[in-house]
Amino acid sequence: MGQMRLTNRRMKEIRSLAQKKYRERLGEMLVEGVRSVKSAVSAGAPIKEILVTEETLRQVHLSDASTVVIVSARELESISDVETSQGILAVVGIEQARPETLPTMRRVLALDGIQDPGNAGTILRTAAWFGVDAVVTAPGTVDLYNPKVVRAAMGGLWDVAHAPVENLAQTLSTLREHGFAVYAANLHGTDASEWQPRAPSIMVLGSEAHGISSAVCELIDQRVVIPGSARREGAESLNVGVAAGIMLYEWAKARKSG
Amino acid sequence: MGQMRLTNRRMKEIRSLAQKKYRERLGEMLVEGVRSVKSAVSAGAPIKEILVTEETLRQVHLSDASTVVIVSARELESISDVETSQGILAVVGIEQARPETLPTMRRVLALDGIQDPGNAGTILRTAAWFGVDAVVTAPGTVDLYNPKVVRAAMGGLWDVAHAPVENLAQTLSTLREHGFAVYAANLHGTDASEWQPRAPSIMVLGSEAHGISSAVCELIDQRVVIPGSARREGAESLNVGVAAGIMLYEWAKARKSG
Repeated sequence: MGQMRLTNRRMKEIRSLAQKKYRERLGEMLVEGVRSVKSAVSAGAPIKEILVTEETLRQVHLSDASTVVIVSARELESISDVETSQGILAVVGIEQARPETLPTMRRVLALDGIQDPGNAGTILRTAAWFGVDAVVTAPGTVDLYNPKVVRAAMGGLWDVAHAPVENLAQTLSTLREHGFAVYAANLHGTDASEWQPRAPSIMVLGSEAHGISSAVCELIDQRVVIPGSARREGAESLNVGVAAGIMLYEWAKARKSG
Repeated sequence: MGQMRLTNRRMKEIRSLAQKKYRERLGEMLVEGVRSVKSAVSAGAPIKEILVTEETLRQVHLSDASTVVIVSARELESISDVETSQGILAVVGIEQARPETLPTMRRVLALDGIQDPGNAGTILRTAAWFGVDAVVTAPGTVDLYNPKVVRAAMGGLWDVAHAPVENLAQTLSTLREHGFAVYAANLHGTDASEWQPRAPSIMVLGSEAHGISSAVCELIDQRVVIPGSARREGAESLNVGVAAGIMLYEWAKARKSG
């Protein structure tokens, strides 16, 4: 094991994957930590290299050794995004779905400007749990291959297709022509518990700060609200990851009954 | 405005509130950022001092000036938990509910060993949104006055009472004697969409890593599961903050209809 070696040039490339522009140029991303790497392996993600320290390799069983590269803890730290590295990191090829394939799907989630990587990752994780087919990201949305998103997604990236789009309004129009209903989580609208989603459909989630972009607004067939029962008027709001979770839960429930 | 001055001794005390043992000793916590401080003010939280830079004070309207202390950006940074301080921070008294008051409540949430401050804060925020009466914390749960919890709670701390307990199993026993049903979010059990919660009741949430503690297990009346529809068996799980959100949503729905 660990016969594979990295050239200095490749090491430099891998280090550059911390930045979005190099992830885009090389079509690769970094996946850190035992749980995330194992999840990528078991999901059949296109793994290029697994960089691991000798110490971690003794503790972790890696069935496919062909991509394993043993590195020093110091080398790993020079790449790692986290303060305390778990001693393992994978370089994984980025696979994207083409927007033209979306009309063949049943349930598509659109992220319109969600910037917080922890929230975006949590939403991916939840989307995987509830069997969403694809996530579409509009411009202004955090890069889903950002290490913080990947970490919070807990493997969710491998179970949901990802299609970045240049113009979300256009994508929604196309999907409507293919019979999709367009839903959006909103501050006003149909009570989530009375919502009767149908498939195929696409659900749009805006950011906590800015909501849904105006170009998208007029393409929404139904707005859905999660009613609160806070004691003080206007006291609180829901975290977008939690709101997404409740919407995805209701969406999945409808699929079972429909 | 800003006539109030801090002694060096008080400044040192405030700095010490970054640590749990001093928060417990002084009965005070730190609340950072414009939104969180405003939320504490409007909720009527027991504010001791508001430390603010001149620059931030010019941008933020603070109606009650009696507790305002103008400090330099450097002084504020010496206290702040965040990398980029928003120039405002409040010292707020810690108010707790006594466990003896729990039997008079309708809906109580128990955190059993949730350690991640972001998740705990998100749960508080969601609990406030859904009008939960109180949150009980068992030993091994993150301190709810930890700055990271306070930040993620987004003001949720002021709308939900908090009762730390030494022995959660004993608290559950007492509440059962008072007619409470004990629910728990679990990997197996009644489907959340078929769950018919009653009040008064208490819901127990365990940690993602360790679940619910064994002493508590036998006191649970009903276990509730959020069924997934992931494409790969055992592929993903739900973040505990998202799972809590879905449970709290169903709990609140039942209140409306019941």
